[in-house]
Amino acid sequence: MDATDGRARTGRIEMRRGTIRTPAFMPVGTAGTVKAMKPEDVRAGGADIILGNTYHLMLRPGAERMARLGGLHSFMRWNRPILTDSGGYQVMSLSDLRKLTEEGVEFRSHIDGSKHMLTPERSMEIQRLLGSDIVMAFDECPRADRPMAEIEASMELSMRWAQRSRDAFDSGGDHAASSALFGIQQGALDEGLRARSAEALRAIGFDGFAIGGLAVGEGQEAMFGVLDYAPAMLPEDAPRYLMGVGKPDDLVGAVERGVDMFDCVLPTRSGRNGQAFTWNGTVNLRNAGHAEDTGPLDPRCICPTCASYSRAYLHHLHKSGEILGAMLLTEHNLSFYQQLMQAMRDAIAEGRFAIFAEDFRRDYLSRK
Amino acid sequence: MDATDGRARTGRIEMRRGTIRTPAFMPVGTAGTVKAMKPEDVRAGGADIILGNTYHLMLRPGAERMARLGGLHSFMRWNRPILTDSGGYQVMSLSDLRKLTEEGVEFRSHIDGSKHMLTPERSMEIQRLLGSDIVMAFDECPRADRPMAEIEASMELSMRWAQRSRDAFDSGGDHAASSALFGIQQGALDEGLRARSAEALRAIGFDGFAIGGLAVGEGQEAMFGVLDYAPAMLPEDAPRYLMGVGKPDDLVGAVERGVDMFDCVLPTRSGRNGQAFTWNGTVNLRNAGHAEDTGPLDPRCICPTCASYSRAYLHHLHKSGEILGAMLLTEHNLSFYQQLMQAMRDAIAEGRFAIFAEDFRRDYLSRK
Repeated sequence: MDATDGRARTGRIEMRRGTIRTPAFMPVGTAGTVKAMKPEDVRAGGADIILGNTYHLMLRPGAERMARLGGLHSFMRWNRPILTDSGGYQVMSLSDLRKLTEEGVEFRSHIDGSKHMLTPERSMEIQRLLGSDIVMAFDECPRADRPMAEIEASMELSMRWAQRSRDAFDSGGDHAASSALFGIQQGALDEGLRARSAEALRAIGFDGFAIGGLAVGEGQEAMFGVLDYAPAMLPEDAPRYLMGVGKPDDLVGAVERGVDMFDCVLPTRSGRNGQAFTWNGTVNLRNAGHAEDTGPLDPRCICPTCASYSRAYLHHLHKSGEILGAMLLTEHNLSFYQQLMQAMRDAIAEGRFAIFAEDFRRDYLSRK
Repeated sequence: MDATDGRARTGRIEMRRGTIRTPAFMPVGTAGTVKAMKPEDVRAGGADIILGNTYHLMLRPGAERMARLGGLHSFMRWNRPILTDSGGYQVMSLSDLRKLTEEGVEFRSHIDGSKHMLTPERSMEIQRLLGSDIVMAFDECPRADRPMAEIEASMELSMRWAQRSRDAFDSGGDHAASSALFGIQQGALDEGLRARSAEALRAIGFDGFAIGGLAVGEGQEAMFGVLDYAPAMLPEDAPRYLMGVGKPDDLVGAVERGVDMFDCVLPTRSGRNGQAFTWNGTVNLRNAGHAEDTGPLDPRCICPTCASYSRAYLHHLHKSGEILGAMLLTEHNLSFYQQLMQAMRDAIAEGRFAIFAEDFRRDYLSRK
């Protein structure tokens, strides 16, 4: 860590393919592309690392094929770090006909109905074949509203899978030596389960620790409730990654509580749907009120979209269903997220994070 | 003209917003955007001028609104020349409930059913409100397979509208002084009608002359048949523009016959559909044969897509329906078209167009 301010931390993760400045936001490149973006523009927007989805890539183009093609970095022309998820979350949310056993998850592809099996061992193998820089342990993520006994059993299964992930990752030769493995804390909204999960992960040993099982519909208040205690259960000298989060105000509140890394489809998906994030809250560009607005989307934003285009033009593109509308708004949203991360890094380094967070919330939440 | 070679010509059209090198290909920016492209990348691909569609823009965002927003150039951030069509062709092909009279065409919008009237005078006014650099006369374009009497009557109507377009354009004040007006020859596949149409246009007087009524389903052979005589009917010292054409081999054959300017949605539309143009013919990237091809789309192409990405990646993007697939392939196709135009300009300037055309057809048509 370079600096801390309250529980907020800023630092750098040094990896073979580049440095990750934390707190970090990772744009999601689901199927080998950050949707509607050229990779050089993702980088120009300030991203140090992107996320790739094991579930999507194992189905298309396929892990073995990706390895033959030289790996994900070369395939999609992103030569900086890539974190890959384990496939565990999406196999449960996207695939058909799942069968969960101690061994792993059997499922049918949502693309062509073909039958597949994901286990901790296979997930590690796939992430190695993709050439991942940060590999995620294979876990199960239950809905937070399931009965406590089910959540407990699921967490315990995930911890056994974490050990199998560790063993399988370590047998990966050169790839194990040049990449990192993160464990994932589970336990939903229960402090006792979260503590036991953290203990199990620390006993196994990982390069970083994710907080899983949040941002699954529990709401910001409940999420912050867990984040009030969960980060402190994890090693202080390792990165803490809150998976699948979130809205700008989620990020600020989570950094405030000691989180270092994030990923979320929100800036990219919203960009395709006409929703923009700005320092003054969200803006729906499909609203007729923008039709003759010659001003920029966000006067405080430094992205190419805000430098060149009017709200009226962005409105026109989104009303017309033009691809350029998705391109320009995705570029803005990703840049805005990175500008927010940089502002948080600066505020932490300068010991003024509490004031920053207060100012941010005043401007961002005022128009909601 | 800088040089001629047989009937092929190369030169420059100097306009207030920039120079157009001819033979020129104009990418189509239908609704205020060359689909899936940033304007700076359209320019980087070699385009000197783009086309905007009066019909689409008059309906959305609307001509008066566009004028209030500062005109089309500022709106879409393209500061070089823009040619606008007259709306005559698309009002007949796209709108609902058309009623054609001597006065003009009454129709309903395909977007919201609203009622509109296009006349020569209104078309000139709309193109002025958009800020067009090259304004097209308002005409009617009948299908080539209509009875001869109908085609003749339509041509005569278009010539009366050409005179009304001229008069209305000339009353446009500053805009008339800083922009150009092109007339459009009609007459379908009939040499006599084409001659009468050309005579009428020369009598009115225009800055350039389009050959209309082709590329409407008559086939390349019939089109080349007309181009064997039609260009010579038009003034030698003015640009000749073949509207809505075409495939790369159409362009080479038309330049060979004395045409200077083209527009077509083919490179952009094909780019979104997974079809690429290369020096060795068309390539359908959705074909499974590309799934493990690590080579570039076209080894002779200098575009950013061919410099960076494999056929395997482009195949993956198009199979996955990713926006980036449309972006990269559109960029390639537009760049390929501009590289073809530059190769033709070079060949004409160096007096070797016949050899160029023979070589081109050997490579391009061999794989078809």
